[in-house]
Amino acid sequence: MNEINWSKSEKVIARRAFDTAYKRECDAIITKLKEMVVKAKEPDDIWQIHNYLTEQREAIDEKYDYRYSILISVFARVLNEGWLRQTDLEELGEKKIEEIRKIASL
Amino acid sequence: MNEINWSKSEKVIARRAFDTAYKRECDAIITKLKEMVVKAKEPDDIWQIHNYLTEQREAIDEKYDYRYSILISVFARVLNEGWLRQTDLEELGEKKIEEIRKIASL
Repeated sequence: MNEINWSKSEKVIARRAFDTAYKRECDAIITKLKEMVVKAKEPDDIWQIHNYLTEQREAIDEKYDYRYSILISVFARVLNEGWLRQTDLEELGEKKIEEIRKIASL
Repeated sequence: MNEINWSKSEKVIARRAFDTAYKRECDAIITKLKEMVVKAKEPDDIWQIHNYLTEQREAIDEKYDYRYSILISVFARVLNEGWLRQTDLEELGEKKIEEIRKIASL
């Protein structure tokens, strides 16, 4: 990927989009967690919930890496996974949106 | 601690008491977990719940060690912590009950 510069205003938009995706994915984890916890009765249910959260935490930590050098790829990934919507990005420069879409389509 | 032999019937009682304490403590974890999850709204709430479960899992794994060589100490500990009741042990030999009480009182 070519090096991409981020203007001050684009950085604001990028941060907001990043936080939005992160929040959406965490909301989905909370929803799933609530479903699991409602059904929890046996000790093993606790450890399954713990395993689920460990997996999610590792995945989230690995995915939500806010470095401008890789942000286009991060956006492409969360766009593909549905945590980000095209409308969240529409104020970004056209070049960046194109780049994100291109990687997302791969 | 002197070596203590466990008769076949005492082993059955011990296993039941051990499982009862384990289940009681896990039930308390489930209750606490449900309280935390009901209030969970923000991403950080998820990670706090995960931290709580990690701590509990480590504590439980360390505590509930079913080896006859250390079982008297395990019972003394869970008796002290309230996960085991004296009535759960009353079918054990008097010598073992005394030993458990002695250690629990330390």
